[in-house]
Amino acid sequence: MKKFVNDPRQFVPEMLKGIALANPDTLKYVPEYNLIMRASAPRDDKVSIIQGSGSGHEPAHVMIVGKGMLDAACPGDVFAAPPMDYVLETSKLLASPKGVLHIINNYTGDRMAFEMGQEMAEADGITIGTLLVDDDVAVKDSTYTVGRRGVAGNFFVIKAVGAASEQGADLDELLRIGNKVNSVTRTMGMALTSCTPPAKGSPLFELGDDEMEMGVGIHGEPGRRREKLASANEIVDELLEAVVTDLPFSPGDDVALMVNGLGGTPVSELYLLYGYAHEQLAQRGINVRRSYVGNYCTSLDMAGTSITLSRLDPEIGELLAAPAEIAIRTF
Amino acid sequence: MKKFVNDPRQFVPEMLKGIALANPDTLKYVPEYNLIMRASAPRDDKVSIIQGSGSGHEPAHVMIVGKGMLDAACPGDVFAAPPMDYVLETSKLLASPKGVLHIINNYTGDRMAFEMGQEMAEADGITIGTLLVDDDVAVKDSTYTVGRRGVAGNFFVIKAVGAASEQGADLDELLRIGNKVNSVTRTMGMALTSCTPPAKGSPLFELGDDEMEMGVGIHGEPGRRREKLASANEIVDELLEAVVTDLPFSPGDDVALMVNGLGGTPVSELYLLYGYAHEQLAQRGINVRRSYVGNYCTSLDMAGTSITLSRLDPEIGELLAAPAEIAIRTF
Repeated sequence: MKKFVNDPRQFVPEMLKGIALANPDTLKYVPEYNLIMRASAPRDDKVSIIQGSGSGHEPAHVMIVGKGMLDAACPGDVFAAPPMDYVLETSKLLASPKGVLHIINNYTGDRMAFEMGQEMAEADGITIGTLLVDDDVAVKDSTYTVGRRGVAGNFFVIKAVGAASEQGADLDELLRIGNKVNSVTRTMGMALTSCTPPAKGSPLFELGDDEMEMGVGIHGEPGRRREKLASANEIVDELLEAVVTDLPFSPGDDVALMVNGLGGTPVSELYLLYGYAHEQLAQRGINVRRSYVGNYCTSLDMAGTSITLSRLDPEIGELLAAPAEIAIRTF
Repeated sequence: MKKFVNDPRQFVPEMLKGIALANPDTLKYVPEYNLIMRASAPRDDKVSIIQGSGSGHEPAHVMIVGKGMLDAACPGDVFAAPPMDYVLETSKLLASPKGVLHIINNYTGDRMAFEMGQEMAEADGITIGTLLVDDDVAVKDSTYTVGRRGVAGNFFVIKAVGAASEQGADLDELLRIGNKVNSVTRTMGMALTSCTPPAKGSPLFELGDDEMEMGVGIHGEPGRRREKLASANEIVDELLEAVVTDLPFSPGDDVALMVNGLGGTPVSELYLLYGYAHEQLAQRGINVRRSYVGNYCTSLDMAGTSITLSRLDPEIGELLAAPAEIAIRTF
């Protein structure tokens, strides 16, 4: 296994400790619950926004805690849902009179943990609303899901409700906004290589030197089909066709375009993919108004990409453009 | 070769096109010279700052063009210096009455191209100053260098002179600041895997499953020695020891700490490394005042890391903290 790791069981806590040490003024780390939270949270005048999921998708979600984004993220171990008591205790620590918003991607394990955590928190008098993200067009049901999976498109949901909550929106309003963004957001991904979970120590699946997996999930679960390795442009064509025809996106639409890396792909390749995707959308009459290129929601060290389109209306466009300050300092 | 690529000869231009399409309001792409420049440059009241190097180190340097950082970057092909006429034409396009600052890492090819480009530009009446960055402590001379190599530490040089130039500093002042930052900045890197240049199609060198290369360069050139794969903490110990004892950094020093990824390493692992490095510096009495974790100067898809320390004085600390707006939109 070619990874930076000490004891694989300590992979997630050691990463979380690093995040906290790098952001002493803005973040708090609560080791008992794998919790990364804003130092200023909870606030009486703001709905607290919490995302929970397995680890291994960084920067999602522990590294996007900050002003205008999440108030907290409580991850489980690598590719494992957080225990329900983490969800409960996180909800209690983040409780605000304006309520708590849970954002979860549509995986069975995450849903179960959050539904039970929510029930217990509500029994303690905490008001909770839940947003379910299911932007992946690749498969209807998968190894870990009934219905569509939630993948990189959740970034747009988080960004929009994060901005609205800073502007004072109440819980019902955030649910309306979040569901609207999810309803106009579509993603499909593909893998050039597998990924290696630290505790497993070997790749989750095998791909031949001349193969790629189209429609892959972010936990190494199978996609639509295995294909012969293709050129960058052919890959973009296939991903875009799946995404555009699903909503469908139409000529005249204004969109945000995200080319997301799955963890092991250099940003040079992501910009190469972006350039062609942008041009192809223009040829379809679809206007890219906002662009996002980089690692947003990854699958450990997997080489691969996903393409997300989110249709903009004036409200969503303004929320995506609002300022935010996340934990990752880039310069 | 598991990469996103069409024609390998078009790898760099296709990437640059993507950068330009993603940043239509702030950047200009001049395909004739592989040039990415600020749309607002040159300005009569500001020294123009240009970095040139081979491609394959992204985000360095074409993706860190923007307010408070570079005015332009003119890369060569992957791991190849830009031709001297690119340097000349870029210097002409960026010419300002306040002068032009060239920043180059200490590689023989880059130095030759920039020295000749500078001579020709000066013959055209353009005032040019040059900053040479050589922060790598790993080896004295290498495959491509006489003297020490310039690696990720050049980020701190660029950030400091970029900020000072926005505040109106003249060329001599930028040379003073840049040389000061370089003189207190030290880096060492290591690789878990090789990297694969698109045009070569196969790894630059071979590393066994249980091997790592300590002190590797950013072009796959050899480092200090090949060792048995070690734990994350052991790797940090070895890198820190080399960096700290070189300057040397002393108890009571305030520093910026960068844990840089070499392209194929997920950010989760980088934060794990960061946490331990931060703690170990604290144990040595060295105070981390600013932290940088992520991909800054990469070697294509290489899995690996480098650790950079830069000693802060009040002037450098303020310049590093100044606002900047680079081409990569993260949220």
